[in-house]
Amino acid sequence: MTGKQSPSPKSRSVDLDGRTYPVYVGPGLIEQAGELCEDMLDAPAFIITDEKVGPLYGDKLHEALCAIAPTVHRLDIPEGEASKSMEIYTALTDWLLGNGVRRQSPVFALGGGVVGDLAGFAAATTLRGLPFVQVPTTLLAQVDSAVGGKTGINSRFGKNLIGAFHQPKCVLADLSTLQTLPGRQLRAGYAEILKYGLIRDAGFFDWLEKYGKPLISGERDSQAFAVDKSCAVKADIVAADEHESGLRMILNFGHTFGHVFEWAAGYDATCLLHGEGVALGMICAARLSARLGYIGENDVARIVNHIESVGLPTRLGQLDGFPDIGTEELIRAMQSDKKADAGGVRFVILRGIGHAEIVSGLDPATLTHVLEEIY
Amino acid sequence: MTGKQSPSPKSRSVDLDGRTYPVYVGPGLIEQAGELCEDMLDAPAFIITDEKVGPLYGDKLHEALCAIAPTVHRLDIPEGEASKSMEIYTALTDWLLGNGVRRQSPVFALGGGVVGDLAGFAAATTLRGLPFVQVPTTLLAQVDSAVGGKTGINSRFGKNLIGAFHQPKCVLADLSTLQTLPGRQLRAGYAEILKYGLIRDAGFFDWLEKYGKPLISGERDSQAFAVDKSCAVKADIVAADEHESGLRMILNFGHTFGHVFEWAAGYDATCLLHGEGVALGMICAARLSARLGYIGENDVARIVNHIESVGLPTRLGQLDGFPDIGTEELIRAMQSDKKADAGGVRFVILRGIGHAEIVSGLDPATLTHVLEEIY
Repeated sequence: MTGKQSPSPKSRSVDLDGRTYPVYVGPGLIEQAGELCEDMLDAPAFIITDEKVGPLYGDKLHEALCAIAPTVHRLDIPEGEASKSMEIYTALTDWLLGNGVRRQSPVFALGGGVVGDLAGFAAATTLRGLPFVQVPTTLLAQVDSAVGGKTGINSRFGKNLIGAFHQPKCVLADLSTLQTLPGRQLRAGYAEILKYGLIRDAGFFDWLEKYGKPLISGERDSQAFAVDKSCAVKADIVAADEHESGLRMILNFGHTFGHVFEWAAGYDATCLLHGEGVALGMICAARLSARLGYIGENDVARIVNHIESVGLPTRLGQLDGFPDIGTEELIRAMQSDKKADAGGVRFVILRGIGHAEIVSGLDPATLTHVLEEIY
Repeated sequence: MTGKQSPSPKSRSVDLDGRTYPVYVGPGLIEQAGELCEDMLDAPAFIITDEKVGPLYGDKLHEALCAIAPTVHRLDIPEGEASKSMEIYTALTDWLLGNGVRRQSPVFALGGGVVGDLAGFAAATTLRGLPFVQVPTTLLAQVDSAVGGKTGINSRFGKNLIGAFHQPKCVLADLSTLQTLPGRQLRAGYAEILKYGLIRDAGFFDWLEKYGKPLISGERDSQAFAVDKSCAVKADIVAADEHESGLRMILNFGHTFGHVFEWAAGYDATCLLHGEGVALGMICAARLSARLGYIGENDVARIVNHIESVGLPTRLGQLDGFPDIGTEELIRAMQSDKKADAGGVRFVILRGIGHAEIVSGLDPATLTHVLEEIY
């Protein structure tokens, strides 16, 4: 694979009984968005991006779509997790409706997970559902939130508590955008890539042990392989369980712990990025798996070493500004996780590298021990 | 059929590839809600109703559910269309989340169309989708909004512009609730019943010409037959086209005109109820059909006479407080209807009684003529 544009970029498809959509992975895709989405561009098109990504890629996407669409509107929302609010969601729906959106109008989410989740939810609910295209510009969004159809906003009771399942019509994972991504963001995205190896593909984890560092240093071929592989694993799981009634839950490996660390950090990205929370959470989940006797201490060591080697945090103490908060409070917050049911909080654990399972009804003492080790 | 409760009330089912749900029609169903929804009541249940219906039936439903569910919460929202707002929607999601809603928690919408649309949208989007039961207490909601899965709220740009398709798990159309319904509300609901005859079943229209008046006077057997028949026609159409890409549009017969009358009336129910708008709109649509040569003037006369005979309005001049507004302004408002596409506003017309079709690209002069006749 080279950095040149190709007229027919590689794609893989997500198959959801009857609704199949392509996921394109490659460099220079934003410039090709017009041709790639040609069949959606009969109606006015809408680009939602943020104040950081808009100035970098907004004009490029606008220009590419203008070549085909009758009108293209663009809105840059404030950057950051705080935008996943009812206020900004309302502003987005007003903006779409105020600019003559039609049922056929495609909404393009250009940016990271925040933009994708928010624009996706606005697309899911404006006129009861508009066609929607994900153009993820962070590694995290490319390998995680852009594929799978989860959209939503935060509530004062927690993250992503309001939302909808709304599958995109198409995903354009333009690898060129990774060149402007800060190293810390790349590493955070890498945590989700690592997750796919751990829960589903031991061979991929082996590969990551070799190529994870070059990938994070910007090596294009490794990025292309890893993004494509991650989308493939996720698409496969989502296809088997779109609405998260079973298998899909394994995608939350590291997330129950991770979410509570993000909550403790006040969702402050300067202290903790989502992917960093997931990295720490995966370490907790691996230690939990070992404590329950499902994997060995050598597996835990391998995981922790790899996470450390790529420059991701392995202890809360490494985080700048993480509050002084006890394990009891963390456990209490975990119990309000929306994935909890009558049987209590569910955790994804490993039964060996490459094999994930769900457990629930854990002894609080076990959780306390696991959490104590992450400080 | 008698007024007595029956342990296994009659139901028909709505079949949407794989997702089938029962529609129960009969008296005394609220008292049986616990048994009828038993399989959903393992988790805390939530009743959303309004300040008018809550005092009448809220306790009954609460009691019926408490017999099975671990906890039952109830919220009475302000009555009326103004509640279909982003503010009340946000308050509902906060109320659900603040009271420990779980993914398995059923939401019961007890009331008319406003409660059903709003509670349905909250259920569709809280935790990305909760199970949802419609308990419609108006004739309009029983024959129209409770079946079909459309949920939503209003925007300052128009009605129902924000929403989702979210099918209920079950519909309980309790005919006993019609006994407390004011005559004007019954007549308004009747307009939608009439619509099913006109668009899909000429024999049903014949039946309505005989039994429409007794039905509105409260005759239980006619109500049971007509509600069940209406649900059957609607379920049949929705099953064929859940997301309104084709056939389902015929359910909008009378609605493109009707919506614009509601808009002109400032959505003020004291001036114009939705069903009254639909009655006036069906007259316009019938006259449009005749003007296009699809039906005869005798058909139009039959429709107008029947609407008049059941006590529904046939002219805008009969409405109390309807503003002085010209046809041009009405036509302009119509053009912003969300069902419009590149080909312009689409209208449902009749090709004979019992057969509906979609037309678009109409000459504004034709619309002007049709509208002039309704003043």
